[in-house]
Amino acid sequence: MSTPHTTTTQVGIVGAGPAGLMLSHLLARRGITSVVVDHRSRSEIERTVRAGILEADSVRLLTDTGVSDRVLREGDQHHGTYFAFGGELHHIDFQELTGASVWLYPQTEVFVDLANAREAAGADVRFGVSDVTVHDITGEQPSLRFTDTDGSAREVRCRYLVGADGSHSMCRHEIPQKHIRQYRKEYPFAWFGILCEAPKSAPELIYNHSERGFALISQRTDTVQRMYFQCDPDEDVDAWPDDRIWSELQTRVGLNGVELREGPVIDKAVLRFRSNVVEPMRYGSMLLAGDAAHTVPPTGAKGLNLALADVRVLADVLDDALTRNDDDVLDRYSQRALDRVWRSQHFSYWMTSMLHRLPQSDDFDLRRQVAELRSVVGSTAASTHLAEGYTGWPNT
Amino acid sequence: MSTPHTTTTQVGIVGAGPAGLMLSHLLARRGITSVVVDHRSRSEIERTVRAGILEADSVRLLTDTGVSDRVLREGDQHHGTYFAFGGELHHIDFQELTGASVWLYPQTEVFVDLANAREAAGADVRFGVSDVTVHDITGEQPSLRFTDTDGSAREVRCRYLVGADGSHSMCRHEIPQKHIRQYRKEYPFAWFGILCEAPKSAPELIYNHSERGFALISQRTDTVQRMYFQCDPDEDVDAWPDDRIWSELQTRVGLNGVELREGPVIDKAVLRFRSNVVEPMRYGSMLLAGDAAHTVPPTGAKGLNLALADVRVLADVLDDALTRNDDDVLDRYSQRALDRVWRSQHFSYWMTSMLHRLPQSDDFDLRRQVAELRSVVGSTAASTHLAEGYTGWPNT
Repeated sequence: MSTPHTTTTQVGIVGAGPAGLMLSHLLARRGITSVVVDHRSRSEIERTVRAGILEADSVRLLTDTGVSDRVLREGDQHHGTYFAFGGELHHIDFQELTGASVWLYPQTEVFVDLANAREAAGADVRFGVSDVTVHDITGEQPSLRFTDTDGSAREVRCRYLVGADGSHSMCRHEIPQKHIRQYRKEYPFAWFGILCEAPKSAPELIYNHSERGFALISQRTDTVQRMYFQCDPDEDVDAWPDDRIWSELQTRVGLNGVELREGPVIDKAVLRFRSNVVEPMRYGSMLLAGDAAHTVPPTGAKGLNLALADVRVLADVLDDALTRNDDDVLDRYSQRALDRVWRSQHFSYWMTSMLHRLPQSDDFDLRRQVAELRSVVGSTAASTHLAEGYTGWPNT
Repeated sequence: MSTPHTTTTQVGIVGAGPAGLMLSHLLARRGITSVVVDHRSRSEIERTVRAGILEADSVRLLTDTGVSDRVLREGDQHHGTYFAFGGELHHIDFQELTGASVWLYPQTEVFVDLANAREAAGADVRFGVSDVTVHDITGEQPSLRFTDTDGSAREVRCRYLVGADGSHSMCRHEIPQKHIRQYRKEYPFAWFGILCEAPKSAPELIYNHSERGFALISQRTDTVQRMYFQCDPDEDVDAWPDDRIWSELQTRVGLNGVELREGPVIDKAVLRFRSNVVEPMRYGSMLLAGDAAHTVPPTGAKGLNLALADVRVLADVLDDALTRNDDDVLDRYSQRALDRVWRSQHFSYWMTSMLHRLPQSDDFDLRRQVAELRSVVGSTAASTHLAEGYTGWPNT
């Protein structure tokens, strides 16, 4: 067995998605070194189609820390959103209600901006590595081991480890069950998501309630659009040729007087729904961030925003712990992050349960949902409450 | 077969609860005659323990139409309410948030005030009659038939009939199924309600969330209090001696730092939960009002308020129909009343689902509920939205 080539850094980060890269970036700005590893290649991550709505504070984090102002130039600022239900289209104006807005800017672009910024700064970010493992996670010198792209064995010794390695997190699985609590919820439906080559059907997102189930009309660019419709978790994408997809989408939004501009479907996939929260978000010298610590259903687009909010707090806490050389400081991370995590869980659950048709739901449930949606758009207080959640709560 | 003694009136009303009596009162103020019949005796209705929270507009209706100002003298004005959850007690100030408040004044007292007012006005209100039936409900001269307290057969011919005869409404059952739609929801729990001889434990209601289930701490007078705790729908009241009741209540509220002042339990009953809506609220010359047309779960105390809101609209519509001699006007009643009915259904469902423990709920659900309650008390917008629903929406 060959001795691995060993390097040393302050923070070893597993996962080079937006959470891991942003953390590495924020730490570098504080003069803290880190190494980031990911088993995926850079192009694999870039090809993953993900959510596209950034909260105002997520945009601020990207621009204020100098990652990129491309979001401001190429992203679309949305001052509000549409709710379609009960045969009508209603608009909620976030800007007017809360003074905040959101940006349509796909997660893939956030990743590209972060990867470019880390590369330009000469950061140690290794894509496409294999056999990543973590060691001595409760000790004072934990480490990452992996096989590099050239086949050589590597070890990164660090002071703290961060698992930002997504919902199937290897890092989380290293924590003995008795030391964490997991809260889970499964939803009895999924989203059928498509990318299509078509012009925009609306200037902002349309959340569409109908007796046939939920649909979300979103956008990507002037020529490519993103749309979703509620489906069975076991839905077979191959059973859905373009004609059938458009017919289903047009029927659902047509019930509320909306008409979509169609075009060739260039990507289609079934997105499962799951809520998951791990508490605490620390075990020994290892901390979890983003999807590794919690997943939310996609309604309301909280996933990426929550991951960025996590690492904003985490950079602060890691800095403090390293400066004081005091591991107890790490406990503040869970304390500060979990409030937003549970708010986001509730917000995502609320948006989901208000808009989707449950398998066992009857006409009472449909009418009640319409009454709820009416109360949301009809009351300034209720619209403001929704806008607060959608545009994101203040940092804690 | 004896020929019934026949009288004539403009509106025949089945049910002498608050809805029927208030309608008779409002019609009289417009110079419209009515006869009200009920199979229950007056003392039987007075002994029925029911909800005790009146919306601001319900109080206004009682006082402005000269029924009684006893509600203002003997009722307790509540400027807000308490929510206990997550180990803490929080206050929501309705008055500050919406400028409106509610009154604690039991439904029984509303009934007494209305029965006294109708009696003083010499109205034809007959309690304790039997064999009530309705006839020719689609014709232009429908009628009520019943056996009077002296055993004699009576017939009341009228222009319109109103079924204000409660959730088991005989009138509603006379409508052919194909002419109405019924929306129903059953809840998998009930309330164990008690009256006890004890001083007040709090100046306003406490809605208490706990992992052991919901509890509501309410009041009646300085010496008699009303409290509830979530239970199984099939709970046996006899299995609950005073000790066990107090232990369960104290445990639930104690988790949030609340302590109750105890005393002898003088009444106990299991209250079933049900949501029901009938559409439309008219069939031919007959109209339904209050519980006969819709029931709500008790969380949020919307039942009586909704019944009073119904008859406020109904008196207006009946007046119009009689004046113009145009039955088509009657359709406006459903159109105007149903918006509030569904708002109330949603509000009651929301309060219920936010505060109760579902049989299949797990720790995720409990934590999410606490996050929801936190967002309600933590956001002025969310508190205002709740306060709007609790104190009642503007009349339509």
